Amino acid sequence: MYLLCIPLPLLVVNPPVALKPRLRWADQLEYLPQTANKLAMEEVLTLGLGGVGAVYSLALDLSKQARITTVCRSNYQVVKDNGLTIHSDSFGKFEPWRPHKVVSSTSSPEATETEYSYILVTTKALPEATPSTADILRPVVSKNTTIVLLQNGVGIEDPISAAFPENPIISCSVYLSSSQFSSGVITQTALERVVIGGFDNGVVNSMLLKNRVARFAELLRVSGANVAVNDDIQMERWKKLLWNASYNTYCTVTMMDTLTFCETVPNATELIRTCMNEVLAVSNALGHSIPPETVENLIKFTMGNGKYKPSMLLDRERGSQMEVEVLLGNPTRIAKEHGVPTPILNSLYGILSAENWKLRQG
Amino acid sequence: MYLLCIPLPLLVVNPPVALKPRLRWADQLEYLPQTANKLAMEEVLTLGLGGVGAVYSLALDLSKQARITTVCRSNYQVVKDNGLTIHSDSFGKFEPWRPHKVVSSTSSPEATETEYSYILVTTKALPEATPSTADILRPVVSKNTTIVLLQNGVGIEDPISAAFPENPIISCSVYLSSSQFSSGVITQTALERVVIGGFDNGVVNSMLLKNRVARFAELLRVSGANVAVNDDIQMERWKKLLWNASYNTYCTVTMMDTLTFCETVPNATELIRTCMNEVLAVSNALGHSIPPETVENLIKFTMGNGKYKPSMLLDRERGSQMEVEVLLGNPTRIAKEHGVPTPILNSLYGILSAENWKLRQG
Repeated sequence: MYLLCIPLPLLVVNPPVALKPRLRWADQLEYLPQTANKLAMEEVLTLGLGGVGAVYSLALDLSKQARITTVCRSNYQVVKDNGLTIHSDSFGKFEPWRPHKVVSSTSSPEATETEYSYILVTTKALPEATPSTADILRPVVSKNTTIVLLQNGVGIEDPISAAFPENPIISCSVYLSSSQFSSGVITQTALERVVIGGFDNGVVNSMLLKNRVARFAELLRVSGANVAVNDDIQMERWKKLLWNASYNTYCTVTMMDTLTFCETVPNATELIRTCMNEVLAVSNALGHSIPPETVENLIKFTMGNGKYKPSMLLDRERGSQMEVEVLLGNPTRIAKEHGVPTPILNSLYGILSAENWKLRQG
Repeated sequence: MYLLCIPLPLLVVNPPVALKPRLRWADQLEYLPQTANKLAMEEVLTLGLGGVGAVYSLALDLSKQARITTVCRSNYQVVKDNGLTIHSDSFGKFEPWRPHKVVSSTSSPEATETEYSYILVTTKALPEATPSTADILRPVVSKNTTIVLLQNGVGIEDPISAAFPENPIISCSVYLSSSQFSSGVITQTALERVVIGGFDNGVVNSMLLKNRVARFAELLRVSGANVAVNDDIQMERWKKLLWNASYNTYCTVTMMDTLTFCETVPNATELIRTCMNEVLAVSNALGHSIPPETVENLIKFTMGNGKYKPSMLLDRERGSQMEVEVLLGNPTRIAKEHGVPTPILNSLYGILSAENWKLRQG
């Protein structure tokens, strides 16, 4: 099962919500002309249509306030011809769901003819890949575009901000159990939560940024998505990194699911704890205030959660490049800048970089 | 190439020695009856006849003061029928060399009919394996037997000493480039050095222990082996562990030779240094005095030494159990007892234990 995101501890797990009551709110908007009239239709481009991309593209579409153009790569022909099959515990069953437009590339004329107010980036975060995400985005970013990053890791905003300093960037921490079983067929179960916030690069007007965040949150909320706005979105990213830089990486190095790792490896929990505490120390040095009990909560949650194959392990199993730079490389570089020792993260970074290198050799 | 041992820095690398001058000394003994008459013939059992076992069994035989019984497992029939083919830069070419006796098990009547003054253990050090080395030795250890451990790692003497507290134990740190290309065919190039010392368990009389060490060193020296006696043999073992717990382990985790690891992995040298410094800290806490420049010397030596596949990596490649407990498990447990933090060793121990577990599942 292709689980794109990481389950989180109790505080973020919400009971599955039935489809009808969720949609009712959005549906009602049609019968509330005094509200509906105020709402402009947003042109939204979504880049990447895997598990996360498909579910949030659908969610935005369900808001009836966004018109979705999707860029598909591996599943372009399938989606173009048949749309997507989406079975979502949070948003319902769609056989098929069709975006307004399907394009094969950001530089295709069908992609560039529209001015997008939001571009959702849900591709795997591989800053070392060519072409870079910034280069892929260039043909479709216009003056009024807000770029929304629904990706793992830390430090992912920097190259985008460097390429488009005038454009607002929204950073998101996503918790979504979704999978693409076969090309164009998406299943999402139980967990759906997204925390969003503006990325302050010191250039974009902070009120504009705030408004763009609020509007994007509204688009998601109106569709029934479980969305929260947090002004300290970087804290949310580091909180998610606690899990991703520990369980995700150790499971990938050992090629074991979480449960097998915990039951097999001597002092597994102590290894995870040491690793998480390094992430916590860097996060503290950056001024974020992740509650220290988060570490133990995450361990308890993971131990009680049965066999789970993290995303990076799935990448390694299928021979895909892993998100080593954004989950380990950037954290260790940030740690070094702030004088925080991270020997374990450095070590895992070295080991998994070696694996990525081998995967590149084929 | 099956390199059983680790090359060491300049201080232990000796120029290859031609065969003739080496043997001349031993040969001359035959013409010195006043010396030869004083020397008793020692009954020696060697357990394990891979690269290290074969070369030192040969060396002892060349002394003409030892009669060698060897226990062979995988290569029993080959050695029984044809002897061993040994091409040794240090001791010469033998096609074949035959031990006095070849036995298939320590409990076979041909093995137990003799009283051994020395038993050389050159098997891989796997304290977790069954039957244990102590159990394998039990049928052949008698009152006057000295047990000689030519194995990697630290803490390997404890289970042997617990099983045979009255028997002297000699501990050895071996540097030998030897390989068994096919069953019964051994090649040893250039490097040959062994440092030996008594293992003080507080029970064995220290003068007896000293004498047994001196006699064993004499047996080796007389054959032309490059042998040194060191009263702090544990220091020698920890010094060798500096390399074995760092390059050996990281190369095994990444499945890369030393050069590829150094050239591919970000901050490879820093990872190695951190790891070696943990070993050094434990060694210091135990009261050994490894010169601190040893770390940088080992790094310089390894960097300049080209592609080299460490023993544990070779084990992993061929699907054999790796010496994880004696190279990482024991050091981390000893560190914990002495309150020395070893996060990197703990981490590598966890990761490689997971690999050993997978190898056991087959």
